[in-house]
Amino acid sequence: MATTVVESKEWYMAAYAPEGVLTSDHLKLRSVTLSLAGDSIPDGHAVIETLFISVDPYQRTRMTGMQDGLYFSQFNLDEVITASSIGRVIRSKDNNYKEGDIVLNPFSPIADYCVVPSKSLIRKIDSTSGVPLPDYLSSLGVPGFAAWVGIEVLGEPKAGSNVFVSAAAGAVGMYAGQLAKLKGCRVVGSTGSDEKVKIIKDDFGYDDAFNYKKETDLDATLRKYFPDGIDIYFDNVGGEMLEAVLNHVNKHARIPICGMISQYKKKWTDRDGVRNLLNIVGKEIRMEGFLVGSYLDRFGDFAKEMESYIKEGKISSKYTIYHGIESYLESLGSLFTSTNIGKVVIEFK
Amino acid sequence: MATTVVESKEWYMAAYAPEGVLTSDHLKLRSVTLSLAGDSIPDGHAVIETLFISVDPYQRTRMTGMQDGLYFSQFNLDEVITASSIGRVIRSKDNNYKEGDIVLNPFSPIADYCVVPSKSLIRKIDSTSGVPLPDYLSSLGVPGFAAWVGIEVLGEPKAGSNVFVSAAAGAVGMYAGQLAKLKGCRVVGSTGSDEKVKIIKDDFGYDDAFNYKKETDLDATLRKYFPDGIDIYFDNVGGEMLEAVLNHVNKHARIPICGMISQYKKKWTDRDGVRNLLNIVGKEIRMEGFLVGSYLDRFGDFAKEMESYIKEGKISSKYTIYHGIESYLESLGSLFTSTNIGKVVIEFK
Ligand SMILES: NC(=O)c1ccc[n+]([C@@H]2O[C@H](COP(=O)([O-])OP(=O)(O)OC[C@H]3O[C@@H](n4cnc5c(N)ncnc54)[C@H](OP(=O)(O)O)[C@@H]3O)[C@@H](O)[C@H]2O)c1
Ligand SMILES: NC(=O)c1ccc[n+]([C@@H]2O[C@H](COP(=O)([O-])OP(=O)(O)OC[C@H]3O[C@@H](n4cnc5c(N)ncnc54)[C@H](OP(=O)(O)O)[C@@H]3O)[C@@H](O)[C@H]2O)c1
Repeated sequence: MATTVVESKEWYMAAYAPEGVLTSDHLKLRSVTLSLAGDSIPDGHAVIETLFISVDPYQRTRMTGMQDGLYFSQFNLDEVITASSIGRVIRSKDNNYKEGDIVLNPFSPIADYCVVPSKSLIRKIDSTSGVPLPDYLSSLGVPGFAAWVGIEVLGEPKAGSNVFVSAAAGAVGMYAGQLAKLKGCRVVGSTGSDEKVKIIKDDFGYDDAFNYKKETDLDATLRKYFPDGIDIYFDNVGGEMLEAVLNHVNKHARIPICGMISQYKKKWTDRDGVRNLLNIVGKEIRMEGFLVGSYLDRFGDFAKEMESYIKEGKISSKYTIYHGIESYLESLGSLFTSTNIGKVVIEFK
Repeated sequence: MATTVVESKEWYMAAYAPEGVLTSDHLKLRSVTLSLAGDSIPDGHAVIETLFISVDPYQRTRMTGMQDGLYFSQFNLDEVITASSIGRVIRSKDNNYKEGDIVLNPFSPIADYCVVPSKSLIRKIDSTSGVPLPDYLSSLGVPGFAAWVGIEVLGEPKAGSNVFVSAAAGAVGMYAGQLAKLKGCRVVGSTGSDEKVKIIKDDFGYDDAFNYKKETDLDATLRKYFPDGIDIYFDNVGGEMLEAVLNHVNKHARIPICGMISQYKKKWTDRDGVRNLLNIVGKEIRMEGFLVGSYLDRFGDFAKEMESYIKEGKISSKYTIYHGIESYLESLGSLFTSTNIGKVVIEFK
């Protein structure tokens, strides 16, 4: 019989960090004791033991204390922060969930254990299917879906289209390029280290890739990698790279904007001004921002297609796996220092 | 019987003006003598007497000596410059055209008379239809069509949508707002004089309008005129106004970009940098540049709709009419000093 209390560590927001690097002054870890006694769990709730946490760039934008342009609300001071998680039900006061169920919670407290309303659990996972659990946070989760929406719904890829993907060795980027390749496109990616340039070509099958940190003239770089111009730019970074791209787009190019990570830790008035938007007129460009939450009616189509690619061995995934809740601050930082490869997750225990 | 020669004045490009105001150092007028003798006109050509010339902002972008982002080629030095015109055929070496035909030439030499390949004449106009000839350069020409493409094709207007139009008293702007009103939208326009603010409301039926030159804080201005945010921004000006709008757009707003006149007389690296593009992601904005030339397959739909509005008295037009070819330099300048009202044309003779 299980114990009736558990000790759980959780991260909470101690102070906002409008700009720059997030430290242990801003995010702090504390221990709480949760009672598992039946009468201490409200009806319609479940107690979850966290197995994996997804570490995502947008979380940083909820820690600035400002409205930032991504429109996720700020975390409240002194409250536990959230992330999407995969966990195991260890107690349940909802007949739809039983002990041992594996569940996905898109806004789970970042904690070893938590008591949550069961309606916040959006998905029950069949853990006998052979799919590794972290895949539900990566290829079959938000990053894969974001790549699919950007490339397949908004990008209108055709065989031979010239596709550029920034942050191409990251969670979303690795899938964006692979999906475009599967549509017959020529795909080039950018990233922040030589090691990742190699991975983009060797593991993700991009036609080419470059390390933008070593390039002194992005204009010349794009001219070299795109002698025939760019038809689709899958934007993960914004700022300087977007400006450079706008000088190399072809007529009627599409720019699905998935994110602008280079702009997340700045007040908007300090952000990079993009000066050549006039090209949007002359080249008749369609630039469109999207959030996966607005495309949930297409999730089924996506999952079907992605699952079949995975079965056929046509999509590969890389992970940077951190261990234990203590690693959250470091793992989040890795997204902003180009040190992660592929999808960043924390494995608990 | 007509004389066999005519004296014709024409404007030619003497020197490029990368920035600032265009003067008689850049554009010069010269006289040439054209022979009308039958054997001096090549087969498949016609001699045209100019009746009206359309004066358009994009012409300025062909006089900078730089590639500018609108991608119309630069006028060649010492060569006559062009504009769209309505003219009368006075000699013809093509059986499809006869003396007296009224024709539209989208890239006519700006000259009293000219000899042109008849295939450059895209449209024969029925001058007995009762439609005033300048309307073919305005409501039923490029400005009306640009307004229609931006509002009806790209804008997706719905009853009650909040629509903002910049340069709203200009040729395109006056129609953009009226078309949006006809779709049941709430429409506000901006312009550069109090006189035009009144015209926008009284003649074009906008719900409201303001003089942006008197506003010191565009952010506060837009908050005041759009308490419920902006659903469609029909952009004619770019730059600062676009940046201000991006702080007031609603979720899933559309921004058809027709032009960016505030940016036409600058090197791209000197243009206004727009700093808050991150809102495109958070608000899931679709921003799309367009040139009417890419929508010619829809011209018939447009013309049918516009003609019926005109017949029903639902669309009104204003003109600023200059007289004589000598006025070209001044008339072009008026587009950049906020002095024109409605469509600018030059009436010859
Ligand atoms: N729209 C949506 O619904 C949605 C969903 C998920 C993610 N996103 C967005 O998609 C983008 C990628 O997210 P992800 O989860 O896949 O993260 P990720 O790419 O795995 O990690 C972020 C990467 O961004 C790059 N980066 C960091 N700072 C940068 C800077 N200043 N300039 C250029 N690159 C920088 C780094 O890679 P390098 O080595 O290449 O520098 C880093 O590895 C982010 O913008 C994120 O916000 C959007
Ligand atoms: N995409 C296409 O196919 C297409 C076709 C036709 C025209 N266009 C574009 O549509 C726009 C309007 O053209 P139009 O022919 O209708 O000209 P217009 O609006 O009749 O004349 C230009 C107007 O722009 C405004 N303006 C000038 N400089 C400005 C500045 N620095 N900042 C803000 N506003 C300024 C002035 O009005 P205010 O009094 O309001 O300042 C001026 O009256 C232009 O950008 C043009 O290039 C595009």
